[in-house]
Amino acid sequence: MEQTTTRSATVNARISPAASGLDVLSRREVARLRDAGAGGLHELLRRCALAVLTQGSLSDDARALLDRYTDFDIQILQQDRGVKLELKNAPADAFVDGHMIRGVNELLFAVVRDIVYVATQIEAERFDLSDSAGMTSLVFEILRNARVLRPNVDPNLVVCWGGHSIGRAEYDYTKRVGYELGLRALDICTGCGPGAMKGPMKGATIAHAKERRRSNRYIGITEPGIIAAESPNPIVNNLVIMPDIEKRLEAFVRIGHAIIVFPGGVGTAEEILYLLGILLHPANANIPFPLIFTGPRESAAYFEQIDRFLRLALGDEAAKRYTIIVDDPREVARHVRKGIERVRLSRLENQDAFFFNWALQIEREFQVPFKPTHEAMAALNLQRDQLPHRLAADLRRAFSGIVAGNVKEEGMRAIEKDGPFEIDGDRGIMQALDALLASFVAQQRMKLPGSRYVPCYRIHSGNGAVSP
Amino acid sequence: MEQTTTRSATVNARISPAASGLDVLSRREVARLRDAGAGGLHELLRRCALAVLTQGSLSDDARALLDRYTDFDIQILQQDRGVKLELKNAPADAFVDGHMIRGVNELLFAVVRDIVYVATQIEAERFDLSDSAGMTSLVFEILRNARVLRPNVDPNLVVCWGGHSIGRAEYDYTKRVGYELGLRALDICTGCGPGAMKGPMKGATIAHAKERRRSNRYIGITEPGIIAAESPNPIVNNLVIMPDIEKRLEAFVRIGHAIIVFPGGVGTAEEILYLLGILLHPANANIPFPLIFTGPRESAAYFEQIDRFLRLALGDEAAKRYTIIVDDPREVARHVRKGIERVRLSRLENQDAFFFNWALQIEREFQVPFKPTHEAMAALNLQRDQLPHRLAADLRRAFSGIVAGNVKEEGMRAIEKDGPFEIDGDRGIMQALDALLASFVAQQRMKLPGSRYVPCYRIHSGNGAVSP
Amino acid sequence: MEQTTTRSATVNARISPAASGLDVLSRREVARLRDAGAGGLHELLRRCALAVLTQGSLSDDARALLDRYTDFDIQILQQDRGVKLELKNAPADAFVDGHMIRGVNELLFAVVRDIVYVATQIEAERFDLSDSAGMTSLVFEILRNARVLRPNVDPNLVVCWGGHSIGRAEYDYTKRVGYELGLRALDICTGCGPGAMKGPMKGATIAHAKERRRSNRYIGITEPGIIAAESPNPIVNNLVIMPDIEKRLEAFVRIGHAIIVFPGGVGTAEEILYLLGILLHPANANIPFPLIFTGPRESAAYFEQIDRFLRLALGDEAAKRYTIIVDDPREVARHVRKGIERVRLSRLENQDAFFFNWALQIEREFQVPFKPTHEAMAALNLQRDQLPHRLAADLRRAFSGIVAGNVKEEGMRAIEKDGPFEIDGDRGIMQALDALLASFVAQQRMKLPGSRYVPCYRIHSGNGAVSP
Amino acid sequence: MEQTTTRSATVNARISPAASGLDVLSRREVARLRDAGAGGLHELLRRCALAVLTQGSLSDDARALLDRYTDFDIQILQQDRGVKLELKNAPADAFVDGHMIRGVNELLFAVVRDIVYVATQIEAERFDLSDSAGMTSLVFEILRNARVLRPNVDPNLVVCWGGHSIGRAEYDYTKRVGYELGLRALDICTGCGPGAMKGPMKGATIAHAKERRRSNRYIGITEPGIIAAESPNPIVNNLVIMPDIEKRLEAFVRIGHAIIVFPGGVGTAEEILYLLGILLHPANANIPFPLIFTGPRESAAYFEQIDRFLRLALGDEAAKRYTIIVDDPREVARHVRKGIERVRLSRLENQDAFFFNWALQIEREFQVPFKPTHEAMAALNLQRDQLPHRLAADLRRAFSGIVAGNVKEEGMRAIEKDGPFEIDGDRGIMQALDALLASFVAQQRMKLPGSRYVPCYRIHSGNGAVSP
Repeated sequence: MEQTTTRSATVNARISPAASGLDVLSRREVARLRDAGAGGLHELLRRCALAVLTQGSLSDDARALLDRYTDFDIQILQQDRGVKLELKNAPADAFVDGHMIRGVNELLFAVVRDIVYVATQIEAERFDLSDSAGMTSLVFEILRNARVLRPNVDPNLVVCWGGHSIGRAEYDYTKRVGYELGLRALDICTGCGPGAMKGPMKGATIAHAKERRRSNRYIGITEPGIIAAESPNPIVNNLVIMPDIEKRLEAFVRIGHAIIVFPGGVGTAEEILYLLGILLHPANANIPFPLIFTGPRESAAYFEQIDRFLRLALGDEAAKRYTIIVDDPREVARHVRKGIERVRLSRLENQDAFFFNWALQIEREFQVPFKPTHEAMAALNLQRDQLPHRLAADLRRAFSGIVAGNVKEEGMRAIEKDGPFEIDGDRGIMQALDALLASFVAQQRMKLPGSRYVPCYRIHSGNGAVSP
Repeated sequence: MEQTTTRSATVNARISPAASGLDVLSRREVARLRDAGAGGLHELLRRCALAVLTQGSLSDDARALLDRYTDFDIQILQQDRGVKLELKNAPADAFVDGHMIRGVNELLFAVVRDIVYVATQIEAERFDLSDSAGMTSLVFEILRNARVLRPNVDPNLVVCWGGHSIGRAEYDYTKRVGYELGLRALDICTGCGPGAMKGPMKGATIAHAKERRRSNRYIGITEPGIIAAESPNPIVNNLVIMPDIEKRLEAFVRIGHAIIVFPGGVGTAEEILYLLGILLHPANANIPFPLIFTGPRESAAYFEQIDRFLRLALGDEAAKRYTIIVDDPREVARHVRKGIERVRLSRLENQDAFFFNWALQIEREFQVPFKPTHEAMAALNLQRDQLPHRLAADLRRAFSGIVAGNVKEEGMRAIEKDGPFEIDGDRGIMQALDALLASFVAQQRMKLPGSRYVPCYRIHSGNGAVSP
Repeated sequence: MEQTTTRSATVNARISPAASGLDVLSRREVARLRDAGAGGLHELLRRCALAVLTQGSLSDDARALLDRYTDFDIQILQQDRGVKLELKNAPADAFVDGHMIRGVNELLFAVVRDIVYVATQIEAERFDLSDSAGMTSLVFEILRNARVLRPNVDPNLVVCWGGHSIGRAEYDYTKRVGYELGLRALDICTGCGPGAMKGPMKGATIAHAKERRRSNRYIGITEPGIIAAESPNPIVNNLVIMPDIEKRLEAFVRIGHAIIVFPGGVGTAEEILYLLGILLHPANANIPFPLIFTGPRESAAYFEQIDRFLRLALGDEAAKRYTIIVDDPREVARHVRKGIERVRLSRLENQDAFFFNWALQIEREFQVPFKPTHEAMAALNLQRDQLPHRLAADLRRAFSGIVAGNVKEEGMRAIEKDGPFEIDGDRGIMQALDALLASFVAQQRMKLPGSRYVPCYRIHSGNGAVSP
Repeated sequence: MEQTTTRSATVNARISPAASGLDVLSRREVARLRDAGAGGLHELLRRCALAVLTQGSLSDDARALLDRYTDFDIQILQQDRGVKLELKNAPADAFVDGHMIRGVNELLFAVVRDIVYVATQIEAERFDLSDSAGMTSLVFEILRNARVLRPNVDPNLVVCWGGHSIGRAEYDYTKRVGYELGLRALDICTGCGPGAMKGPMKGATIAHAKERRRSNRYIGITEPGIIAAESPNPIVNNLVIMPDIEKRLEAFVRIGHAIIVFPGGVGTAEEILYLLGILLHPANANIPFPLIFTGPRESAAYFEQIDRFLRLALGDEAAKRYTIIVDDPREVARHVRKGIERVRLSRLENQDAFFFNWALQIEREFQVPFKPTHEAMAALNLQRDQLPHRLAADLRRAFSGIVAGNVKEEGMRAIEKDGPFEIDGDRGIMQALDALLASFVAQQRMKLPGSRYVPCYRIHSGNGAVSP
């Protein structure tokens, strides 16, 4: 149903914000956004804006995207009625017969809002980022500024994770799950992009239409490094650009009341390990957090594999934190509903906010941005001589590095220059990891179809190479 | 994405109207709706309500439906806060975890509203139904009472016709067309039911979500004889039950600003002939009325066939009234937009209402309900010795009879009892008609898949049987 | 705060309806409204429209009003976007710097809506007006068509009656009562016009602003005979033109959940007797109906007088139906709130509609329009040899006649031609009546200040003249 | 119409925010607000909250207020659905039959919002307050955070200044002006409190009701020092607590598109001098800024006096910046409308924001908080040997000091301790000043009626005492 043209027709346009409230900037902020110098925000804005504008295109190659629209430019204008955006050589697919799709317009101004806010707040050094609580405060304030935190709303936010590159059957399944969630007045939050991040929103949109739900929230949480590869689709009506992947992940688990994981690739594995790492922390043992792995009949094997890997690496205890449901969207939705009811009661009991999971303890090792250099990847501790939640933390980083090597601009450049990352660790875990990754490759879960996948990693155990 | 269970689970429920404004009934009206006697409205209400409640099921066999829920009952209760509906043994698919889907709720109360209004108005003999203007007045007032006529809205209503039984490719195509229409702020009106009546609404729903359009209108116009076979899907947010097929057709052409015809069967053919019959009337020669026949590449042959039949029966002049577009949803939407702009200018020039096409002359032969008895079918004048718009009128009736014999309760009973209808006329036309119908059968356009089609008609020309 | 200029500046304007939903007329209806002939509605429309347009002026002399704007004209135009009104020589006070006050615009289209609806419905003879239930049905349907009947709303409608000609202290008091009602989420319904019909709405408006109440209803119920003398102020956001005074009164008691009576004149007395006549009917003995007489300290004597008259004429039993509260707006509001809670419980128990008091029995003698001719006035039975509710009925008519003689066009002409009405009855009652009327005259409650009052009645008892 | 009881009935209550969007606080912010220690915000919160809660009372004695409710307390609770306020011994007048007036509720949460925001932002040292632009940025961000800055709205904000202690005729006049402004779709901004700050809002409320305007803005801008004396009335639907009087004044002139000055006392004089001081700056010579002084016929002398004083002190040039209109609300409104149209065109031409007057140059002497100690008051330069806008700056400070001595807690204590302020300057100006102040005293413009005014100042010129 989408516009899938790959032509690079472009248009020039001057855009006023379609929604209200996002577009009052001070003169100083406008200047910062226009600043194309070293400390300026212009290039960041340009890249994120381009990602939003190419929402119709089917490519996860961030660099290819940037290359195709090298002459694209965006400028902020302060005008009588508020801020305007001046676009030069913008992708034509964001427009319909000359007007910009309103959802795209909103996403564009969300980009402006978050870029300027994050820069200003961090520069002002308002947050003590050497401290776990300070880090969480920053996540909180970015979300609040983006008006994602809504009081007086019963818990109803379901985070959906899963691959951006999935097959038709899996995609249709995510739509059906979204439809059943939507019929139960649940809102959807994903990481933006195609595949499992889009299907649930489409399904929920149809259900919400049938339920005449008008205050729907389709929240997309992304970050500058991934937005180009997984550009937000315009159903998203609440886009937040977190400063990095770790804050993005923290945002998911702080605002989501339940998480559904669809089949995916390394990114999905990263997300699973991040969440399990947190949930396995003893301090979080009694915090209810519904977590469901689900897919269509055809994908049953996928989650068996994940399940085996998790049990092997983190122990059976870890498996108590998730439920696997195969090919039953209605059951998934019911399970989520029930789980969220437990979350609601727990928050009530502890007088904790519905809109932000303050209670969850997230350690700094899950918060500090992981730079996936060759050194950092090689230095990961993937041995068994540690607590499960710490092992999960480094396994998460391993997957994070592979995601970067696969689709992030910086990572791809590093791999090009210095060859694949070396990953070393416990033999059993390494073999399981290797098997898992191999199956991702075989199932074309690493990249969008059409491109052959060249691994960006090599797995060892001690001296012996495991793969590839 | 729909609930397709065929189990006949049922529930009892007491339902308050979810929307406002539809539910203030006088005591007298409540009494009429509760009256299960000969002149009472209860049975009509029960049948239409059941149709609405089974929107999730995939069956166009009205009788089978009624048979499956023989113990279903509905009663109106006048209560403190307004009217309530008491449902007994209602199909469970209308409910999600105990609450009725809100769209279904609204459709149910629309049924109540229209049944009681039509009965009261016609009984009061407020309209001179022996007169064409009186007939049109009735159509107008039913639509006004259903709040379908909206002033201060620029023309933007696209009527979509087409088969309820179409293949996957055709169905996906109707969604893509609906999506492109939705991106252009167009609203959708169909005859309810699955297939081509549902696809455009789903596509438009996604587009409207992307465009943040909130005042969308998904209008469904049906009538008691067809509603069971083509039950309205709950995306429809403006349902109208016209008293019969002729008033339903008049409603379409009075409120639609453009009409798109997707591939379909005899019902679609009936609609085409009805509209061309009107447009070919000399008095309507200068009234702009965008009419597009469209389908995916795979269905190109279908419209060639229709085109040939129409040119043969009604002449090449008739073909000037429609445009055939193959496999290009965007072009369809643009063509519609341009056509509607011409409609707008024409209405402005003539100071005619945007919301009701008063100018169109519709003769009584297109208004008087056609009872498809064996006698009436045999008496149709399908010879060439008449003006094209009159021939179109009787051809329309011929198709109408076949629709009745296929899917309407009364028609099916008549066929069962007395065998197929006999249709007689000009040899050339009869042969073309026969070929057309045969291809409908071959392409499974007569009935939903799964059932073998037994023709309800026999075509002659003079003494010679043409078919089947 | 109002525009009180008395200059007769006029403007020509073409007006589109500001609100939605009231302005879809059929061609036939437009023709009826344009018809200036004998059976046509044009003159009625012209007079009511003029009343609405002169809302700023302080005059209750309907004829003077009509005389001042003899060249005023109004025409309905059917246009592309709906109906428009073409105004010629319209009072300038309805406009602010060239645009019509939106509230006036809405009232104007309400006039159109009701005039055409009432005419069409009554002409169609849909209602059996020889029957009490038929009469009530007509009242119901006019109110429903005007969208006054709202389901799903808890009882909260307070009808305020009282004089249009009251002093500053009394007027301020009605504002204070309205303010206290508004703070308690109560809506206001009055008969339109200045004084006690306007003060409560202004007070409630301020309270509703403080309470951020947005779905406020300020309902005005009038009729063609009184609208010119008591033109609706534009705070009224739900205007209904009932066909005559009796249906207007029935509308008040069917939709009001409590009634507050402020000091007033004969019109107010008519309303009190109408309501008591109904409440004293044995069939209504157990129906809760909060009725409060209230005024500022200065007006305490007024209600003592009314109370004495009612006890004398109708007996002490009648006095149980009302409560007198002097100079305590907060207590009035609390009393109303409590009374309405009893109404709510009673409706719940009897499963009666919140929005229409079906249970109240209103006899035909309170429904049949009373034509206050000299003969009819002389024929009233004001003797004690009857049940109190029947005596109340004829007393009501007596007051109704005096209202007509005072401010209604037709009544004033009759008095001019044939002298005052003769009213005859039981000596005690006649003397009390005479005293009451004399005090109204003395307190300037008969006419707006500035004009000397010449009585339109003469009171007898048997042969002896009582007054004046 | 207000509750004017002086009894000190109190209630305990737990309050959730009635409006959305103002009530998401981080844990850290909640802790700051609960902190009753030296650097904590609790006492500030308590005092401002108390001011809001006593909106119904008629007292401008801040200390008396605090004394009456010594045991009042307020605590912030972080709860499941967001923030709650726990009130102990709160003034009963903020409640109606147990529920808090919704407007009061909103004001209360606005207090919370601004107190925490200002504290956090200033602590973070995000603004360079030694710099004029930094100061303006802070004003901008506080207003933005309070959602006062609205893009996409044509200029329509009228700031009304004037006395909180004015007579009935003057008060009624402010209502009439507000009514005429409201009829012209203008919004109102005042400094909160009774009198001229409340009348225009009440008048506009009635007009907005008649115009069915729903997005009305009644903006109140106050500061912690004045809020207790001039507590905001609940019609205010946008309350902002600026940190001090100078930022409050800057807020007025940055967001207002026109300013109307009603009769008032020293506070009003301070405001006039502040604005004229800015407008007389050469850099602002070409910036349109409608400024009207107006009052009823009875107050004509008042503005003659002000006019004389301004011409004497600042020269005739200053008088070109304002227009005096006597007793003509409609003319005032028209004048404002025309002036705002000039503002609109000027902003369009200069591509300046409608919602914030960036172009106006405000020097630091108008921005730096003036502490009215005895020393500072004595040190004011009120001689003629300087440019008019600088003289205006110190005259402004002189009035500011008197306001503090009259009604602000700190100022009153200083006067009590050290006697009246000494004000010294040019003899001619001092005499005029003395005459002006004397007339304020005579006209009871210094304090609310009922209390005898004891001057808090003594005016000299060189060695000679001028008064009192």
